Amino acid sequence: MPETAAPATVGNSEFDRATALTPHEPGVYGIDLPEGWTIFGALNGGYLLAVLARALGETLAHPHPFTISAHYLSASRPGPATVRAETIRTGRTLSTGQASLFQYEADGTETERIRVLASYGDLASLPDDVRTTAKPPAFPPLAHCVGPDDAPGSADHQPIADRVLLKLDPATVGWALGQPSGKGESRAWFGLADGRDADPLSLLLAVDALPPTVFDMGIKGWVPTIELTAHIRALPAPGPLRVSTTTRNLAGGFLEEDAEVWDSENRLVAQSRQLARVMQS
Amino acid sequence: MPETAAPATVGNSEFDRATALTPHEPGVYGIDLPEGWTIFGALNGGYLLAVLARALGETLAHPHPFTISAHYLSASRPGPATVRAETIRTGRTLSTGQASLFQYEADGTETERIRVLASYGDLASLPDDVRTTAKPPAFPPLAHCVGPDDAPGSADHQPIADRVLLKLDPATVGWALGQPSGKGESRAWFGLADGRDADPLSLLLAVDALPPTVFDMGIKGWVPTIELTAHIRALPAPGPLRVSTTTRNLAGGFLEEDAEVWDSENRLVAQSRQLARVMQS
Repeated sequence: MPETAAPATVGNSEFDRATALTPHEPGVYGIDLPEGWTIFGALNGGYLLAVLARALGETLAHPHPFTISAHYLSASRPGPATVRAETIRTGRTLSTGQASLFQYEADGTETERIRVLASYGDLASLPDDVRTTAKPPAFPPLAHCVGPDDAPGSADHQPIADRVLLKLDPATVGWALGQPSGKGESRAWFGLADGRDADPLSLLLAVDALPPTVFDMGIKGWVPTIELTAHIRALPAPGPLRVSTTTRNLAGGFLEEDAEVWDSENRLVAQSRQLARVMQS
Repeated sequence: MPETAAPATVGNSEFDRATALTPHEPGVYGIDLPEGWTIFGALNGGYLLAVLARALGETLAHPHPFTISAHYLSASRPGPATVRAETIRTGRTLSTGQASLFQYEADGTETERIRVLASYGDLASLPDDVRTTAKPPAFPPLAHCVGPDDAPGSADHQPIADRVLLKLDPATVGWALGQPSGKGESRAWFGLADGRDADPLSLLLAVDALPPTVFDMGIKGWVPTIELTAHIRALPAPGPLRVSTTTRNLAGGFLEEDAEVWDSENRLVAQSRQLARVMQS
């Protein structure tokens, strides 16, 4: 089989190459943020979270983000960036660390883009017991869902759309036809376009990959994330993920957006919440 | 009216005195963590979050925590502590900062207890528009709810119980009688015992004041918080608060616990989520 036909795997995929870090000194990494993971010129917030999480995974004594909280300071652009990561505490089960991503002004001064705190553990070491009342919402089959390029007005094609498989539940894309449901919901099948299976890092991409829930409330505009916290709850099984996002409370121009990610074995593998701001256009 | 009969007010109450900081130098504050806010010998996590939030409020250009994420590193004990707070970024609408609380080993070395990242704004400046589908769950009248000392086994009286008004929905305290509902829910009326009204700082106390939701799932033990993120969404109206906490997913010994806080005008004033760990006894 020619190499180009080999399916992408964890460790050998475009997502892995796009998040790869060059170690400069202990805890300091370089990366050239690629154009390919942008939306309207800015790097996707979930992609950036994965970059920071990868730096922490290389720095801390434990491999997987159990909980990671990111505060977004300014929009990241394609080009060179530096990630600094440090251990705050190393415990037997969990390690806690901090990381920041910086870019450069024309005069060479550093600007901090994102700062994160995270506690890492080893998901593979956890006992199998699950006691959950959480159930995935109903999703139509993937083949009945629609991609960004299926929607009217898809002249707005974004580079990231070539790199993720995002197939939206038609019930939550009425806004693209001027008929938002008003519920503040978005649901989609999610994967990486090259077929790479999910892992904890790609789950961080999944939680911030869907159209803003406020579109489903009939609001248009830019909805920048102020802060996003994700809990990775289990190693995801192979196969496409289902992501459900909801907003219950939009008040004073701010809203929460909750995401849940379900794997192919119906396991709740990630939960996230972000505080975002509506900049109406 | 004698001074002892005057109702406590924001700025003049036991909670305000217990969170008061002594400035040592810019961004560095001293505090003597009081015995009165402990539970089983450790300072309450919500109280500590309020201390750190107060330090950030004195350091940052904006007054109120819109979103604050705390990673708990080690248990805080009554006694001297130092809080260090710094500004990361000052914007027009929001400022972002970081703070840590430290205590001391016998040999004088510092141990970090908690680290937080937070974005602050001015809740009083937000427009009044609210579009919410969130509704408070049904709460019995306060007079029909039960306090920690009404429960059997109240020999476990904790100092913090004298400082907060906590009246639990009887439907969520079956665990105290050996009859947990299994739902993973806890609901309570909440206030400060001396009658001080709620403010953004006391909302941080409210989100971590109820018995662990896992008690309602029939699990006993210590449930330490790994990380807690709270969003303060509005200035609370005077009067007691209603706090509802839920856990949907307990897996591999870890769980999320979500809290919602409602004010007397039925407004959703705070949302929080924590990742906690069950240490079964």
